[in-house]
Parts: sequence; structure tokens; C-alpha cells
Amino acid sequence: MTRQIKLGAFLPGGGQHIAAWRHPDAPADGATNFEFHRRLAETAERGLFDAYFLADNLSVGLGGREGGNAKIAGFEPVTLFAALAPLTTHLGFIATASTTYEEPYTLARKFASLDLLSNGRAGWNVVTSAGDETARNFNRETQPSHADRYERAHEHVETVKALWDSWEDDAFIRDKATGRFFDAGRVHDIDHKGKHFSVKGPLNAPRPVQGHPVVVQAGQSEDGRRLAAVSAEVIFTAHQNLASAQEFYRDIKARVKRAGRNPEHVLIMPGVAPFVGRTEEEARSKYEELNALIVPEDGVALLNGLTGGTLDLTGYPLDGPLPVSNETEGMKSRQALIRKIADEHGFTIRQLYQWIATARGHYTVVGSAEQVADQLEEWFLSEAADGFNILPPWLPGALDDFVDLVIPILQRRGLFRTAYEGRTLRENLGLPRPANPWTLARATVQAAE
Amino acid sequence: MTRQIKLGAFLPGGGQHIAAWRHPDAPADGATNFEFHRRLAETAERGLFDAYFLADNLSVGLGGREGGNAKIAGFEPVTLFAALAPLTTHLGFIATASTTYEEPYTLARKFASLDLLSNGRAGWNVVTSAGDETARNFNRETQPSHADRYERAHEHVETVKALWDSWEDDAFIRDKATGRFFDAGRVHDIDHKGKHFSVKGPLNAPRPVQGHPVVVQAGQSEDGRRLAAVSAEVIFTAHQNLASAQEFYRDIKARVKRAGRNPEHVLIMPGVAPFVGRTEEEARSKYEELNALIVPEDGVALLNGLTGGTLDLTGYPLDGPLPVSNETEGMKSRQALIRKIADEHGFTIRQLYQWIATARGHYTVVGSAEQVADQLEEWFLSEAADGFNILPPWLPGALDDFVDLVIPILQRRGLFRTAYEGRTLRENLGLPRPANPWTLARATVQAAE
Repeated sequence: MTRQIKLGAFLPGGGQHIAAWRHPDAPADGATNFEFHRRLAETAERGLFDAYFLADNLSVGLGGREGGNAKIAGFEPVTLFAALAPLTTHLGFIATASTTYEEPYTLARKFASLDLLSNGRAGWNVVTSAGDETARNFNRETQPSHADRYERAHEHVETVKALWDSWEDDAFIRDKATGRFFDAGRVHDIDHKGKHFSVKGPLNAPRPVQGHPVVVQAGQSEDGRRLAAVSAEVIFTAHQNLASAQEFYRDIKARVKRAGRNPEHVLIMPGVAPFVGRTEEEARSKYEELNALIVPEDGVALLNGLTGGTLDLTGYPLDGPLPVSNETEGMKSRQALIRKIADEHGFTIRQLYQWIATARGHYTVVGSAEQVADQLEEWFLSEAADGFNILPPWLPGALDDFVDLVIPILQRRGLFRTAYEGRTLRENLGLPRPANPWTLARATVQAAE
Repeated sequence: MTRQIKLGAFLPGGGQHIAAWRHPDAPADGATNFEFHRRLAETAERGLFDAYFLADNLSVGLGGREGGNAKIAGFEPVTLFAALAPLTTHLGFIATASTTYEEPYTLARKFASLDLLSNGRAGWNVVTSAGDETARNFNRETQPSHADRYERAHEHVETVKALWDSWEDDAFIRDKATGRFFDAGRVHDIDHKGKHFSVKGPLNAPRPVQGHPVVVQAGQSEDGRRLAAVSAEVIFTAHQNLASAQEFYRDIKARVKRAGRNPEHVLIMPGVAPFVGRTEEEARSKYEELNALIVPEDGVALLNGLTGGTLDLTGYPLDGPLPVSNETEGMKSRQALIRKIADEHGFTIRQLYQWIATARGHYTVVGSAEQVADQLEEWFLSEAADGFNILPPWLPGALDDFVDLVIPILQRRGLFRTAYEGRTLRENLGLPRPANPWTLARATVQAAE
């Protein structure tokens, strides 16, 4: 089959842009409105998206307290997706969860449960949860170092995968006649004893429908890339231009190959924030309309929040340049990216937050539906992307625009599906179902005998 | 309004009785079948139950590995209930979660999220998760002592409640015109620094619809009763006879009063496992049919599992008496209860597990619908119960029997509702919505000025 674009939809109920909730079409309470999330899921499924994706923080986030950010309080992603699963049939659900502040047993179980009740549509976006604000909600004064968080993340992900594998696929017998419910030879302790975790297992959930829920990763730092290369099957990434996306794509695919994995089984999906119009002019006026709604104090707080509280601009003039500062432990890659944008464009603080407010470091496309489709096609065909994570700047309008105007063009060009191919998220993404290592080991022994 | 019986439905998909999955009417895969859980929720709502209740373990449980227990692997309660919430409209959902192995921030958030997406139908059953098997899934070799677990539980529950209160009810302004999304004066750090937890807050979820999800507790030990008296609004409890239930009822109501709380706002709901027939004879044959399905090894493993692995009967003859042993740290009250049953009835090991297999220490009623209703009425009117947690021995049959045969009798006697009174779980249970302490403090200051 021809290679086609994969699409995630990044749909926080309050919208992606910091002023999204002020948009005339948006419900002001979208962040905490379940029926609104249900409508978003239905639209994403109508658009044949692979998955609904949600980022997450374990604190109110964004540094300052005062202000207008709708993301400050809302649903926990796994419970929200569990509620949306029975209301949909094909859409995948990629929930963010933390390796720094959650235990492997609890995390493995909730994703196994989501995968079971959605019939194989769960994905886990692995994050290490930067920032002291979050650390202070979990018995610490400051966050662990970047290196420590990633070391723990490696061990965490391997432990979670081992727990998902602790029951073999055929462990359940359920024979009413003999009373044998399961085969004790096909359920296994994992006996993990590492630097960060000791977990005996087995998990108290059957092996997930997908074997493993799809493992997703988004870190762009050196540590993040290393983790992605050995663990991730989908990688979300933020790039401002084609060359940067191509560099990342080549680097990750090479790392994946060096790690002994098949590069075709690791999908790279940059974020794209599309302002779509019937004409370029209409798209541009949508862009300007939304940016005009940003309250300045919220813009400054956004920059600080995005860097885990390491970019405090209090007291600096809004129409002056970004002050110089040293790199800190929090969110290295994100602060570097934001500074690069400011440097490249010669932005003032105000111009910077206006730019960032739309897509937070992701690629912003403003144009007619044909122009937007052209951009996606170019990235997809020039080794910059296997698909995209679409970040509609406001909701529901920008999602509707993408589904109604851009998707049909991609379909006509043969670049996107016209019906779901499979039953599970993994099948739609074209990713193989992981073999169970216990089953594999027994098959190997039997073949040798 | 006349006082009426409150009803919880304890509906693990695999059934309550250890051999429930072998029942001819039961789906053998009920424990992991989402559509089956949906049917159970719909039946419970048709029966006007206050809530669907699920217990929980953080390990495969039940000591031995081999065997026929369907509870060994299944859904995580909060994700399951999140999925069932949009498919129902009035039924409450009481999920069990652990104060020993979960962080207050994460726990407060997932219940706030469940409460939000269910429009105020969440309840939290507070447990301390006994047993070394569980401890070994969470970086320990042995469990913390009983006293330590309960000390931590007290601090945990207070921290969770403070997080739920960190946003005042009217904190969200969402004024599109001014761009003010919330009132910074109505969101608060909790700044908790205790022996077990340091949590700064605020929670990244709005105050729950119910103020607090309903707090439920089930411990029967001295430590458990102390926790229930200061924290719980619903208390599940296990009694074999009226006198024992009355003693517990009187003791708890007195403790609640001494703690400065209103005893009418703490509902005591003993567990009842009903075998209902159109005649007593039919009920008795249902009871015998189910007990005949127990595999002996599973019965022995059940006794050990129920006591947190402290009652290892390997090597003792099944038709001999229960051996003497010392009380250990694990599940004090449960082991004492099981020994008491064996002593009172002069049971052999086999007879003991057959008795326990039905209701695990709860009250078993075998009789015609009128007889079962008589028993519930007697307990309800003689200060033994404010309601009951119904444990159908197998599913769906025993739940259907209760809803179709017993509920109409209770309704005719005026002992049970004929329609839901309220919108939230708290309203149906007749429990007040907790005031927010920050709002209260401001009102007090303003009144004094």
C-alpha cells in the first residue's frame, strides 16, 4: 500500500491558542465542558484522524496565577478518554502521563484499562514533567535534574512494558467445565529491581488488546531523542521550518536504526497549527483576529510557563528584546527553541508571545486549504514527517475548517485515508503488534527441541 | 421526608462469589468485558440504586496463582466508571483508591475529573491496601504497619479534601470581553507540609460538582473506625448478624458525634449477598448450585487472599479445623472476622471457604423476595443500617433478581425511592454539599466588618 499521512488531533477543550476561549465561536467553558469534548472527538473521528491527543501538566502550570489561560484547570486525560471511548468507534486516544510522578504499576494498569475498554485504541505519551511547580505537588522542593528524570524515564517505560507483557495473550482459559480460569504457566512475575523501581508483578490486568498501547514521545533534547530512539513508536516534535524538521527526522531515523529497530515503525509527526481559509486573505484575517485577543500579562506568563518557570520576564519592557539568561535544568530544549525564534525574527517580547501563543513553538501555517495541503504534502514527501499532529488554534472552528476543507484535498491527492484501515490505533498507524517475550521464548525453546 | 433505604450495588464483572463466572448464565469473560459492565450499570440504574461500587486491589491478589478466580485481572475502577458515566444519567460511581500507594495530588485530580464528567456522581472508597504482595509492586518488600498505613490515610484524606477546595466554586469568571478567565483571589495554594506529604497546590481541576466526591470507608478495625468517624460519609461494613451490625452502628454514630459531626450525615451500609427466589426453596437451590461450582484449591487460596496472605492453609486437611495462628500486621479485622465465623459454626476449612465464597464475610440472605425484603426492613428499622451494599453472588442473574423481585416490594412498603430525588450522588444519598472553607472564611470576615 502507498504510504499515507498519519494525523493526530491536539484538542485541549480550552483551545491551543492562549486566547482561544475568547474566540466568538468558542464556548468559554470548553476546558471543563464534557459535551464539548465529545463534539470534538466526533469531529476528529469524522475527519478520520488516527488519534485524539492531549498534553498534560501536574500543576496549574504557566507560572503566574492571574490571567486568562483556559488550560489552568480541566480533565485528567485518561479519565476523559475513557469517557469518550464508548462514544466513538475508531478514533485513538493518546494520553500524556508522567514517569517522574507516577508509579509504573499504576500507570501500566490505567493504560491497560483504557486499551481494554476502547478495544485497542490507547496510546501513552511519555513525559518527565519538568518544573519546580509540579515537584512541589509531589513532596519535593525542586524537580529532579534533567538527566535524572530521563534515566528514570528509561527504567519506567521498560517496567511498564514488562507489566503489559506479564500475562501472555492466551493466558485466559475460562473453562466453565473444569473451573480453570487461567493458565498459571502463562502469567509471570516481572521481578524488576532497578535503581528507581522495584516491581514484582504481574499486572492485575490482561495483556492490552494492542499488546502494548502505542508509546509516544515528544522530547527534543539529546536525552529526549535517546529515549525516543529506544522506546517510542510515534514522536511528536516542534519545528518552525522544513530544514529543522528534516534534520530531526534524519537524526531520529538513524538513531532508531542504530538501536536495532525498524525506522518504518517509528512515526515522526511534527505539530502544525493551521489557520485555514477559503482564501489566503481569509486565513490571515482569522490569524489576526485571534492574536488581537491576547491579554499582554497572559502572553508574558505563557513564555515563563512554557520554559518551566525559567524565563521570568517581569519588569522587562514588552516592546524590548528578550533578556540574556543561562540555560537551566528545566525544559532545556523548549527554552532554546523559544530563544531561537526570537533571534531569527528579531522579535520583541510582545511579538514573541504573539507568535508563540498560536502554536507554542510548532509550525504555524496560514493559508487557503490548497496552500495548507501543499505544505503538508511537501513535508511528508521530503523526509520531514510521516504525519502531523494538528493543533487547531481555537475550537471548534479551526478543527472544523481542517476537517471540512483540508482533509478532502489530501484524500483527493491520495495522501490520506478515505476510511479507517483497522480496528485498533496501532492498526490504523500501521504499527506492528509487539510480540510477547514469554510466548516468544517458549516458541524458541520448542523450535529447538 | 420519611427516611428511606440507600442502596449500593457491588458489581465486579466476574461476580462476587468465587465460582460466579462458572454460573450457566454468567459470561465467563465478564471481568474483562466492557459491554457486560455497561449492562450491569444499566440494570443498577433501572433499579434506582444510589451507586455502582467497586472494590480494588493493586496486585493480582488472592495469594496463590493457579486457579479459578475471575477477579485476578480486570478494569481499573476509575477508568471503568469514567467510561460508564456518559452511558448513564443518575447512577453514582464509588471507586476504590489507595492512600498508601497513590499520591494525594493524582488521586484528588482523577476523582475531580470523574465527578466533572459525570456531573457530580463520583465517590471515593478510601482504602489503605493491605498485604505484602501489593507492597512488592511499589518498591517495598513488606507493607507498612497497620498503624502507619492509617496514620498516612488520615493525612492523605485531609490533603485530598484541601486540594478539592483549592478553587472556590465561583473562581471562574470566563469573561470574553475583558479576558479575565478566573479570579486569582479565589484560587489558593494549600501549602500542606505533613509527616507523609508535602503538597503546595492548587489542584489543576475545578472544585468538584459535589464540592467533594462522596467519601466512603470500609475499615472495621479500631484504626478503621477512627478514620471513618472523622472522614467518611458512607461506611460499608461486614456483619453476619443483626446484633453485630447494631453494635457497629451505635459505635460509629457515637464516634461521629464525638468528632463534632452530624450522625445523620454518615450513612452505614452493611453488605448483603442475596439469593432471591420466588420461593424459599428456589432460593436455596440457587445457593447450592453456586457453591457446588467451587474448586477446592480456589477456596483455600481465597481464605489466604482475603487475609492479605496471612492465612496459609497449605498442607492442612480440608475436612479438618482451621489451625491456630497469631494475629499479624495484615488486615487485622478481616482475619479476626473469618476466625469468628469458623468458631461460631464449628466449620471445617472446606465448610468455611464455602460459606465465605458467597459473601466474603458479609451477610448472606437466602429466601423468597418477601423474606429478603423483611430482613432488610428489620435491619433498617432497628438501628443496624441506613442502607445496604448489595453483593449479587453471581451476575447478571442475582442482580436482575434483586431489581425485579425485591426492589418493588421495598417500594410498596415505602422503604425505597420510586424515582431518583436528585441530580448528584450526594443529593440522592441525602448528604449535604461541603462548604468551601476559603469562601466560608471570607464570608465570616465580611460579616464581622
